[in-house]
Amino acid sequence: MESNRDVHHVVVVGAGFGGLEAARKLGKAKERVKVTVVDRYNHHLFQPLLYQVATAVLSPADISAPIRHILRGKNTQVLLAEARSVDTARKVLVCDGGELAYDSLVLATGATHSYFNHPEWSKIAPGLKTLNDAVAMRERILLALEAAERETDPERQREWLTFVIIGAGPTGVELAGALSYMTRHSLPKDFRRIDTRKARVILLEGLPRVLSQFSEKLSEDARRDLEKLGVEVRTGSMVSGVDEQGVSIGEERIPTRTVLWGAGVAASPLMRSLGAPLDKAGRVKVDASLTLSGHPDVYVIGDVASLQQDGKPVPGIAPAAMQMGRHVAKSILERLAGKPPEPFHYVDKGSFAVIGRGYAVGTMFGKVPLSGFLAWALWAGVHIAYLVGFRNRLAVMLNWFFTFMTRGRDVRLITGAYAPRLPPFSPTAEPPGDGIHAGPDPAHSAPPPIH
Amino acid sequence: MESNRDVHHVVVVGAGFGGLEAARKLGKAKERVKVTVVDRYNHHLFQPLLYQVATAVLSPADISAPIRHILRGKNTQVLLAEARSVDTARKVLVCDGGELAYDSLVLATGATHSYFNHPEWSKIAPGLKTLNDAVAMRERILLALEAAERETDPERQREWLTFVIIGAGPTGVELAGALSYMTRHSLPKDFRRIDTRKARVILLEGLPRVLSQFSEKLSEDARRDLEKLGVEVRTGSMVSGVDEQGVSIGEERIPTRTVLWGAGVAASPLMRSLGAPLDKAGRVKVDASLTLSGHPDVYVIGDVASLQQDGKPVPGIAPAAMQMGRHVAKSILERLAGKPPEPFHYVDKGSFAVIGRGYAVGTMFGKVPLSGFLAWALWAGVHIAYLVGFRNRLAVMLNWFFTFMTRGRDVRLITGAYAPRLPPFSPTAEPPGDGIHAGPDPAHSAPPPIH
Repeated sequence: MESNRDVHHVVVVGAGFGGLEAARKLGKAKERVKVTVVDRYNHHLFQPLLYQVATAVLSPADISAPIRHILRGKNTQVLLAEARSVDTARKVLVCDGGELAYDSLVLATGATHSYFNHPEWSKIAPGLKTLNDAVAMRERILLALEAAERETDPERQREWLTFVIIGAGPTGVELAGALSYMTRHSLPKDFRRIDTRKARVILLEGLPRVLSQFSEKLSEDARRDLEKLGVEVRTGSMVSGVDEQGVSIGEERIPTRTVLWGAGVAASPLMRSLGAPLDKAGRVKVDASLTLSGHPDVYVIGDVASLQQDGKPVPGIAPAAMQMGRHVAKSILERLAGKPPEPFHYVDKGSFAVIGRGYAVGTMFGKVPLSGFLAWALWAGVHIAYLVGFRNRLAVMLNWFFTFMTRGRDVRLITGAYAPRLPPFSPTAEPPGDGIHAGPDPAHSAPPPIH
Repeated sequence: MESNRDVHHVVVVGAGFGGLEAARKLGKAKERVKVTVVDRYNHHLFQPLLYQVATAVLSPADISAPIRHILRGKNTQVLLAEARSVDTARKVLVCDGGELAYDSLVLATGATHSYFNHPEWSKIAPGLKTLNDAVAMRERILLALEAAERETDPERQREWLTFVIIGAGPTGVELAGALSYMTRHSLPKDFRRIDTRKARVILLEGLPRVLSQFSEKLSEDARRDLEKLGVEVRTGSMVSGVDEQGVSIGEERIPTRTVLWGAGVAASPLMRSLGAPLDKAGRVKVDASLTLSGHPDVYVIGDVASLQQDGKPVPGIAPAAMQMGRHVAKSILERLAGKPPEPFHYVDKGSFAVIGRGYAVGTMFGKVPLSGFLAWALWAGVHIAYLVGFRNRLAVMLNWFFTFMTRGRDVRLITGAYAPRLPPFSPTAEPPGDGIHAGPDPAHSAPPPIH
């Protein structure tokens, strides 16, 4: 084995959009650097489509790709490990099971949800950041419908058919739209005792409008179209309580068995080990060249970086992370060549949120507002283009095509142990109806529960 | 809602190949019967391709379809529930959460693994019957490779790179072939510190030959081709011990961290509640018309039925279950018309086991032996044809095409919490090599473990 210990060692933590882009670009400079990518998962995840896994359109493998495979054959090593802390004095990254010495460090560990000082809500209202999250959310949604189908008490049945989504940023809006579409168009014929079209999908937002990163006009468009899809949109509604029986908004109570979390962002806790100033979401305040103040060899990018540009924060979205990743790779190579660092400049090429089948809102180049089918087509094209791997692109297109044509939701898997969560059902000498009817058959009284 | 309580109520337990076929056929006799299908999962599973989920070729959703969706729009109700016992006197099926009264009952609950009086082995050596099983197996295989890549001790590294499969029936043979192919052809370029081509895949079988349901000639063909793929085939090897450090065969010990179970069949425990004679695998001995002796209204089909025909047992495979399902549906309708029951006659159309890429062995019509590419092509065609749903067929074909062309294994997801299972790694100021080399860099000594 050839010894190249004098080659500059870059450790990249996190193989999301930012980290992967940095590693790919550094991987081309084979003679000058070697790269180690550390991630606690073995796959890169295309997070913007996670809500489609949660709503049974896509499979986990459609939106993820093995990191080793993406970076195979380059001057790059991949280590499946969890980063625990950074020791900037010794220049090592401390992980479970060992330490990595670095010459340059790129921190790209991303964000998790924040429950606003209510960590106890996390068990009741799952968020959407990992594949496990998405599969768990899918299972909750599908189980709620199965429970409603079994339920004999009309009031509890309504609770099972009520879905509350907290937070009307892109994740919350996309989830609400997809869920409402699914209950109204994909599933009605599959159930006998409930009418899934009567399911309530309630989107709660503390701020005065949905998608508040966009203009008021676009927020209005989004709200109108969500409502057209059957979503109950409630802005200015600050949630004060979440428990297994429902959600509280001040004095008001919404009884529900299914609460989904689309709010709050907290930077990865690794950032706290840096001893650097953090913003209130736990992000590291970086200087213009994306380095940690006083540490030109430590770069912080993507959702864990806090950076103002032209008086506005650079948003925590994939395109910004990718631009940062490329910038940092270039900076490292230039630093090795003795050049001074250049400031990062974010170019807003656009951002969109999908409302429903063939409908999205967003802006291009930070200014041009778009809504409707054209926005959706742009969104779809860009997402397909940025998916990693030809197989994934084809699989997603295939699934979208089927979903679009058949309105079906085919990835409807419940694989976990469900039984303790489902209610007793009525003694079915009961005939299946020919049509759809909500509520249990009044001719039957509820049986004594068996367990 | 129309009342049709005088219509004959058929309860089908289990939506596998047999149950689904019965329900579909009964679903066409709308005016004469109503059907309730009970399953503890919400999806029908195409079990013959489960090993391809375990070896990262297919996604869970590619080989499963929602039962509600398959049976939508028919005179059929679907209930997500676990059947607990049958009360033939009261003619009810007792489930978690309630009871179902039946006029006819079709038991099609399938089989699980048997650990031959060693239930403690089940945690160490997972079997392959459900999607959860397959995903857990996939995760174990992938984690073992990650552990080997991190491992600094050469001996432990060899243990991580040793895979033992117990049982050389179709499941074990197909798993062993796919796993050996994966380590030899799909993954070598993705790792830096280990050579996955040196992984050992050991197939253990207590009987004198593999695939003992086929002729000696076919067993020989299968063995030869498994060995060509790099599998170590050891027949006549009765396993006496399985623990987390390895497998014992009498005095001999094979150190390994990954043991996969492909042996033993035990009928679903529901059968014990019938008070009927069972065979030693727990299957119900049925009469020639597939009913329980003395209970013409209770049908038992598929892997839970024990039936001799022409001096041989009807095999526990999908085609037999489907034929039984159709026969039972016909019998129920004929009984309603006052006709006497006809005996079931199994027609052996063929059965195959895949050894590797483009290679299978098997027989057609119970007699014509086939091996090689033609057998594989027949296997592939039949499996595609019997998959439920056009989307699934297309998805499986797409994935097979990619796997065949690229030799890739793209569904390589580890989503669980892995960290406690992985060994410490060496302090990597260590350079990634350009080629593949087995074993840790001898220039480095192992660091003190961190946790």
